[in-house]
This record gives sequence, C-alpha cells and structure tokens, in this order.
Amino acid sequence: MKVDGKPYRTIWVNENGWSVDIIDQTKLPHDFVVVSLGSLEDAAHAIRAMLVRGAPLVGATAAYGLCLAVREDSSDDAIDRACKMLLATRPTAVNLRWALEFMESRVRNRPRDERVTEAYKCAAEICDDDVSTCSAIGDNGLKLIAETGKRKGPGETVNILTHCNAGWLATVDWGTALSPIYKAFDAGIPVHVWVDETRPRNQGASLTAWELGRHGVPHTVIADNVGGHLMQHGLVDLCIVGTDRTTSTGDVCNKIGTYLKALAAHDNGVPFYVALPHSTIDWTLSDGIREIPIEERDATEVSEMTGRTADGSVASVRILPESSNAANFAFDVTPARLVTSLVTERGVCEASRRGLLGLYPERA
Amino acid sequence: MKVDGKPYRTIWVNENGWSVDIIDQTKLPHDFVVVSLGSLEDAAHAIRAMLVRGAPLVGATAAYGLCLAVREDSSDDAIDRACKMLLATRPTAVNLRWALEFMESRVRNRPRDERVTEAYKCAAEICDDDVSTCSAIGDNGLKLIAETGKRKGPGETVNILTHCNAGWLATVDWGTALSPIYKAFDAGIPVHVWVDETRPRNQGASLTAWELGRHGVPHTVIADNVGGHLMQHGLVDLCIVGTDRTTSTGDVCNKIGTYLKALAAHDNGVPFYVALPHSTIDWTLSDGIREIPIEERDATEVSEMTGRTADGSVASVRILPESSNAANFAFDVTPARLVTSLVTERGVCEASRRGLLGLYPERA
Repeated sequence: MKVDGKPYRTIWVNENGWSVDIIDQTKLPHDFVVVSLGSLEDAAHAIRAMLVRGAPLVGATAAYGLCLAVREDSSDDAIDRACKMLLATRPTAVNLRWALEFMESRVRNRPRDERVTEAYKCAAEICDDDVSTCSAIGDNGLKLIAETGKRKGPGETVNILTHCNAGWLATVDWGTALSPIYKAFDAGIPVHVWVDETRPRNQGASLTAWELGRHGVPHTVIADNVGGHLMQHGLVDLCIVGTDRTTSTGDVCNKIGTYLKALAAHDNGVPFYVALPHSTIDWTLSDGIREIPIEERDATEVSEMTGRTADGSVASVRILPESSNAANFAFDVTPARLVTSLVTERGVCEASRRGLLGLYPERA
Repeated sequence: MKVDGKPYRTIWVNENGWSVDIIDQTKLPHDFVVVSLGSLEDAAHAIRAMLVRGAPLVGATAAYGLCLAVREDSSDDAIDRACKMLLATRPTAVNLRWALEFMESRVRNRPRDERVTEAYKCAAEICDDDVSTCSAIGDNGLKLIAETGKRKGPGETVNILTHCNAGWLATVDWGTALSPIYKAFDAGIPVHVWVDETRPRNQGASLTAWELGRHGVPHTVIADNVGGHLMQHGLVDLCIVGTDRTTSTGDVCNKIGTYLKALAAHDNGVPFYVALPHSTIDWTLSDGIREIPIEERDATEVSEMTGRTADGSVASVRILPESSNAANFAFDVTPARLVTSLVTERGVCEASRRGLLGLYPERA
C-alpha cells in the first residue's frame, strides 16, 4: 500500500539485487525506518526482535533469510543450519515453518551453482503468493462493504470497526482484515475506520492507525472500551478483524478483546466478519475455547507504555503502582456463533464446518 | 480504608481544626501526597483540577469549600458567591449541587456568629452519611461474595472483576463497588480482584490497583480486553462495578467499557452486580441508551499516556501517529437485562423498576 503516495511492500529486494529491505515496525508509528538485511543473522534478528511481525511477513522474512544464508554458503549443511536458526526465532509460527520447508525442498533439488538464484526466485514466489491471497481476500470482502454502502445510500460513509493490526504491515501487502477496506477506499467508497487501540501492545493505535493514515484512509483511534457504545448508537456498520488461528468449525482465535467486540456486534445486529487466508485454518481443531492454548506474555507489556515524549524522544513509562502485578493473556477465542461470515481468498462463507468445506471441498 | 496499615478517609479536617486535608489523586499511583486546602479557592481548584474526583467526594469537598468560605466571610452574599463558584467547578455533578444546597439551607438559618460552627458540623454530617451509605452497600454486597465463597468451598479464592474506580478514593471511605470487597477481605474471605486498566484515563491501573494494594487486597491488573477470556475459562466468579447514573428501570450508565464486560458476564453465566448509593438513581429516566447523553472528553486522554520514567520522574508520552485523531466517549450504558442485581445501601434488588421500588417504596 502507499506511504504518503509512494507504493510499498513490507519486504523487498534492495536495488543492489541481493540485500533485503524491511520496515522496522518497532519504530512505528513514531519513525518510518527502512532497514537492510545483509545476512542470515540480520534476518533472524529482525524476526526475533519483531522488526517484522504478522505470520505471512515472518514467513517471507525467513524465506529471504535463507536466501542470504545460501548466498554465503550453498552447502546442504549450511541450509540445514540456517533453517534451524530461523525456525528457532518464533518456534510456534506455522507460516515460518511452512515457508522454510517450501524453500528447503526447492533449493536442495538444485545443483549448488543454481541455488542462490532458485532461493531468491522461491522467496519472491512466497511474497507474490501472499500478495495475491491478500488481494483476493480484499476483493471478496469489498463486496460486503459495497453492499453495506448501497444499503446506506450514495455518499454515505460506511463505518467499520477493526481490532489489532491485520493490515499490510502484517503481510507482504494489502493485509487481511484491512485489505477489503483498502479496496473499498481505492474504489471510491467513502469509508471511515474505528481503530481499537488494542492494549496492551497497542497494535491498533500504533500500526493500524499509521498504515491507514499513510494510505489516506479516514480513521479514528478509540480505546478498546468504546466499540460497544458506538454499536449501541448505530455508529458502526460492520466489524472486520483478522485471526491467528481458525478451527475447522469456524471458531476464531485472535488478539485478546476480539471476543468482546463480537459480543457487542451480536447484541446490536452489526455484522462481524473475520478475514483470513486458508493457512490460518487448523483443520484438526473443532472447539477453539477448549483446544487452543492462550499465550501469556510478559506483564511489562501491561505495566509500561511506550511513546514519544514532549522533547521528541521515545520513552517507556510505568503506569501501574510499583507493587501491583499484571497478567497478560495475548489472545482470546470468539465462538463461531458470533461470527457473521468468514472471508477468505476463495470467497465468503458461514463460520462453520459446512461453510468452510464449501470453500475448501478438498478437506472433506 | 488503610494505606499501609494506617486508616484514612479521602477528606478530613486537619489537626489545626479548620483547614481541610485531601489526597492529591492526580499524583496517584506514583506519589501519595496529602494537600491542605486553606481557602475557598483551594477547594474549587481541587475539584476543578480533579485532585479529588468521584461524585460523593466532590460533594464533600464542595461542602468543606463552603466552610472555608464562611470562615473568611459569613455574610449571605459571600455564601452566595461561594456556592456559585463551587457549583461551576463541575457543572453536571448532581452530588455537588445537592451538597451545596443542603449546606446553604442549614448555614443561612443560623445567626452569623454560629455559621462557621454549623458549616463544619454540616460538612462532617455529609461525610459521615457517605461513609454509612458506603458501609451499608458493603454489608449488602458482602453477602453475595460470601455466598459465592460458600459455593466454591472453604479456602477457595473468590475471583472478582471490577472496572474503573468505584473505591474509597471516589467516596469518603469504603467506596461503592469495592466496599463489599473490603468487607469480604476484612472478614477473612479469600478474595482476588481482576482490575480492568480502564483506558483511557486508567483509573483501574492507577487508582483501584493502588487502593487495593495499600489495603493489602490481592489483585492483578489486566488490559480491558481480557475479561471475556477470563470469564470463558471460569476465572471470574462475579463482576461488580459502580455507576454514575442509574435509570428507574435499572439501566446503568458507568465508565466506558462496562457494557462489554456485562455482555461477557451474561454470555458466560457470571453474575454481574452494580453497587450504588440511592443518590445515583435518576427516577425521571427509563431508557438509559436513548436518554443519557454521553460526555465526549479530550482526545489527548487517548493519544497520551502518563507514567513514571526510568529515572523516576513522571512524564506523558504520545502513543498515536502524529496525524491520527482519537475519539473519547467517557461512559456507556449497560441495559438492565445484563445486570444480575443492584446493590444499594438498603439491600439487593433486581435491576428493574419493580426491584428498585421494592427498596425505595416512597418513590412509587
């Protein structure tokens, strides 16, 4: 998407033809810094220190990390070592494992003098595939926004609420939940986005607000507490969020707080859509609340807050009493009964096993 | 309640017999600072700049503000001017108006040389009445906690979720929603409180966590997004919150985000209690969502966060991109259908007109 008029992806090969450029997302929203990765170690650090985040982008960065490794040493041993190192950066990331397995099988099949070229080609394919997938999610979700716009009448703004960041910053381009919004905006449909701050890591206030703003999409940041009130008063036409993991029955595991917004949407008759690539569907799960373990993260994410001080520097402040503890559950599960539809690269379906099998009959 | 073992109210007459001491709540949770008010202007400033907040405490501070005014000039004119000045500090505060009208009618009825004594007597009555009211709310709510404890079995901790600050810091002592929790803790029932951070003003993380901690009550601060997840997993036995305004039908207008927790409680069969003194009931209202206008506050409360920096000073940081706007709705309305019971100084009742009239038959 665009940053102040100039099109960007979140990861691309530098004009030198080999090093890999990324946006340092830890510096957002305060500074827009592009970092060049010149080695396997650089790529591993970028994933580990969350300069890049979001499952698809982590996968793409790992893929390019392997390119950088192969460039230095194209032996089978070196490929092995590089894959192990990259896999250890975020051990639970499914996309990361998938991207590395795909890269490894393709690269190993080539003679050593073709491996570098093959690796870069393969990483580019992973990126382009992600862009097509996200673009298709956008096209499918766009129809839902356009229908809502038609019901409201010409020139009427469609108000959309989103939680966390499922935007282009989490993918290679377009995003998942934000892709339909960008498509609608680019198509001239008047949209306005209510951006949940998304405590404790503030991905809404820092990343979603930043990327919408840079592309020019009208938006307003709200505390996570506000969405219910807005829905009670007809100020939200639809909700759309992403998902980290989706059960075969349509339960959605997404950033903590998603469930509360889904409850409010249900209580007020507001459609609640979840956008996802097929890769987040875990066909082995059927009960999200019982089966999905919820990560507990460091309490300092709750007790401290980072931002720009009056003098322009970036600092963290402690907001809790010194003696109070915090708990930090990172995700929650929204039961399928609260989800109006799932929006995937193949189309829109009911949040149920039947709905998902309709789009993915090969899983039946 | 106690601060590290020493009993405190939020407002008291200094040992010099005339100036009025308060806790500067804008400094919490980072510093515990007692401020002496020596004049009408001091009292007006304390209310306006929110050194004191919470309807009952604002009323009590205004009452003592009038004492300080009468001490300097006990004429009818001076009383008039003082009341106008104090009323203008928080024009929409119902308790403030009520406290001033009560004070004025009592003080004016006295000869000028008795007015100072009468004023202090009258202000003390207002404070003592608030303490009795809050203590009675606590006794009534304690029964609900004790019953839950009995159901769980001996020694089992009762987990209670609360939102915002309806503690002793908002009243003269005991608080409303926290009063039953203090009573349970003091009675030896093992309790643990999940404290919603309560963005954007963070009254949970700064005030509720502070006062529970200082009194010794076990608690954990959580992001406002977390409560639903906790309730899905049986980690909350009951919710209890305060209210700023209650309709005659039992709808509850409280800090923004209360509605979302009530939805989650309802969805998971967790009792959702609202504690209130009769003074918050607005008998003229019957539909909270339609009839109660919701205050919009300054967007900087969302875009900035204040806390203690690494070097120990207190600073504000901006957490939003420079070009993003925020909206700041301060309250929402929880419909009576989501409220299990109301807990008042007279007892516990259904959140309905019938329930309220059962406790307040004089309003029929």
